[in-house]
Amino acid sequence: MKRFDLFRSLKRDEGGRMLLIVLDGLGGLPRNPAGKTELETANTPNMDALAAESVCGLHMPCAPGITPGSGPAHLGLFGYDPFEYNIGRGVLEALGIDFELKHGDLAIRINFCTLDDKGLVTDRRAGRIATEVNAKLCEKLRKIKLKGVELFVEPVKEHRAAVVLRGPGLHGGLNDSDPQVTGHPPLEVKASTKQAEKAARLCNEFTARAREILKNDHPANMVLLRGIDRHELLSNFADIFGARAAAIATYPMYRGLARLVGMDVLKTGETVESEIETLRKDGAGYDFVYFHVKKTDSYGEDGNFDAKVHVIDDWDKLVPRVRKMGFDVIAITGDHSTPAVMKGHSWHPVPVLLWSGLCRPDDVKVFGERACNHGGLGVFTAVDLIPMMLANAGRLQKYGA
Amino acid sequence: MKRFDLFRSLKRDEGGRMLLIVLDGLGGLPRNPAGKTELETANTPNMDALAAESVCGLHMPCAPGITPGSGPAHLGLFGYDPFEYNIGRGVLEALGIDFELKHGDLAIRINFCTLDDKGLVTDRRAGRIATEVNAKLCEKLRKIKLKGVELFVEPVKEHRAAVVLRGPGLHGGLNDSDPQVTGHPPLEVKASTKQAEKAARLCNEFTARAREILKNDHPANMVLLRGIDRHELLSNFADIFGARAAAIATYPMYRGLARLVGMDVLKTGETVESEIETLRKDGAGYDFVYFHVKKTDSYGEDGNFDAKVHVIDDWDKLVPRVRKMGFDVIAITGDHSTPAVMKGHSWHPVPVLLWSGLCRPDDVKVFGERACNHGGLGVFTAVDLIPMMLANAGRLQKYGA
Repeated sequence: MKRFDLFRSLKRDEGGRMLLIVLDGLGGLPRNPAGKTELETANTPNMDALAAESVCGLHMPCAPGITPGSGPAHLGLFGYDPFEYNIGRGVLEALGIDFELKHGDLAIRINFCTLDDKGLVTDRRAGRIATEVNAKLCEKLRKIKLKGVELFVEPVKEHRAAVVLRGPGLHGGLNDSDPQVTGHPPLEVKASTKQAEKAARLCNEFTARAREILKNDHPANMVLLRGIDRHELLSNFADIFGARAAAIATYPMYRGLARLVGMDVLKTGETVESEIETLRKDGAGYDFVYFHVKKTDSYGEDGNFDAKVHVIDDWDKLVPRVRKMGFDVIAITGDHSTPAVMKGHSWHPVPVLLWSGLCRPDDVKVFGERACNHGGLGVFTAVDLIPMMLANAGRLQKYGA
Repeated sequence: MKRFDLFRSLKRDEGGRMLLIVLDGLGGLPRNPAGKTELETANTPNMDALAAESVCGLHMPCAPGITPGSGPAHLGLFGYDPFEYNIGRGVLEALGIDFELKHGDLAIRINFCTLDDKGLVTDRRAGRIATEVNAKLCEKLRKIKLKGVELFVEPVKEHRAAVVLRGPGLHGGLNDSDPQVTGHPPLEVKASTKQAEKAARLCNEFTARAREILKNDHPANMVLLRGIDRHELLSNFADIFGARAAAIATYPMYRGLARLVGMDVLKTGETVESEIETLRKDGAGYDFVYFHVKKTDSYGEDGNFDAKVHVIDDWDKLVPRVRKMGFDVIAITGDHSTPAVMKGHSWHPVPVLLWSGLCRPDDVKVFGERACNHGGLGVFTAVDLIPMMLANAGRLQKYGA
């Protein structure tokens, strides 16, 4: 039986309310082998108390040894097999600026770049032009007309922008026009399948027109296309798992990922405090709320061990407020590890605590990587977290007689 | 390579003798988060001593979060993927009364029900008639003749009975005739595939004849058909794993499940004592014995925490006798959890101990849910237990050179 068919057949459309708290990049590493990780270093009396009443463990976002991007890591946590449901980079870029993609859109990341007189790329990032310059160039590019499709061009940051083509018959299976090295001309976009030919033609038309328009805008006198992908809405979370779901996140990309699986995105502010307020005010109407805390990952990426620790400290102080909101099932975890010592995402399993009145607590009394190794959930793949939350919420019927 | 093909290619038809003891619904929950489960509460010096010489862990009967029925839970323990091999409810009902199903039989659960003058169902259970009344009505229904098939009608309990059609060309893919709600007439049975049409016709003929025969037997003046399924023998256990297998169980359903995978069912009495005697006397001729203890589950279902504890206490006293019988590999576990606090099956992983002279003991010194979290087997899916038993019995060859 296919996995989603199983859940569709077992789901109950009523039951307890669930809260999934994702501290982005939570998992870490000690600064030296005998030391403590960021989470182990942080002062977390409230999460420790919760862990003592929870069943704990560690999840692998995708599979052993695999370091995930934010897309696959979140899809796994949402219960979607990240190898079956792969989100293209173009799509992720558009989601990251809150662009509301529609089913069938072709999404593309672009770099503004510099060409020399011979048409060879001399700087793949056009000297990292200011975001304001980028915005003006995007305005120019919006004038391009492509037959039969609607065109959207949106600045992202520095030299990066997002382009979306909307119209019938657009399919992925296209190479980047970025040659990856300087001294080469931009590549022609080619279709790897017959059905992608229309999209390839339009991409090449777009870059040809962009080249004309930008010819006097040195250093940003050309664009390179990357991660060209068709956007397809995924099976709907509520339809598969029977739980009406909402997302609370301060960063657009995580809102976009939640939208991708059909969650409602709740309007919130810029701080974790404001997210908590949104959770209290607007979370009550949902069976499932995904709640995202970004800064753990940001400081991990910066290599700032202490700042990551402080984000966790601060988060822990909010936990008692969350516990008072009446959720029947609470899970706290990360989407992946971002050890400050690695300054980037990693493959290391991520601590998880799963609390409910029926969770069967284990011997874990503190929330941390080493402690969670002794937990009742063991080491499992992230995709199994949602089924366990549903079970704890009384939302899955018995399989078979 | 397909899973069973792997074992067929690696199995050795000689090696140690294996005993799988299944305390039905063994896994439990504490009465409060800080408390002990049923197994942790029980006095189990003999299983604790065995655990100290064993490798321990917990199995998930089917998959994380999935609560299994007895059928899928047992198939998993027997090494059969419970998602690949799904047993229909009609088949399970027939197995539950020791009916010896043959390959190709169509098995049906029936409810006696009440129809009003207009032919609408007013009580889907005919006021839960006494089992003795049920038996008399079944005798009447046995007179029905259906062309080309043999008919069996057997009372189960109260309003429930089992019907089996035996003959060529009977296939599943049929809806229930039970409308699920009162105020509606019984539904016509329809075939979802061409090959199921013969079975559909015979089912409708059976209900039409039953209606005539029962018309004066108010309140049980009609039958509703449910869980109509073709019975197919599964791949044979001995053929796949190379071990001649026997089953000892006091309850018919578990004997039926063992028969389904080709185990010999040994005649035994009504008590665990009598099962032990059967094991001693008749188990010796087999490479593998499945030994089932029912009452742990029964008291779990009743919500009787203390009685479940006592069944475990009593079982533990028998363990020394079992150890003296010379098995080379002993596994003790449950088919699923039945926490008394939930009064039903649950998804929680089930403690396992696996003892053999080569098991590589871990640090687990007591047999219980929390302790087993620290075991060398980790948390695994039940379907992997049989391969580990075979390995410990020296019954699997090396894979590859």
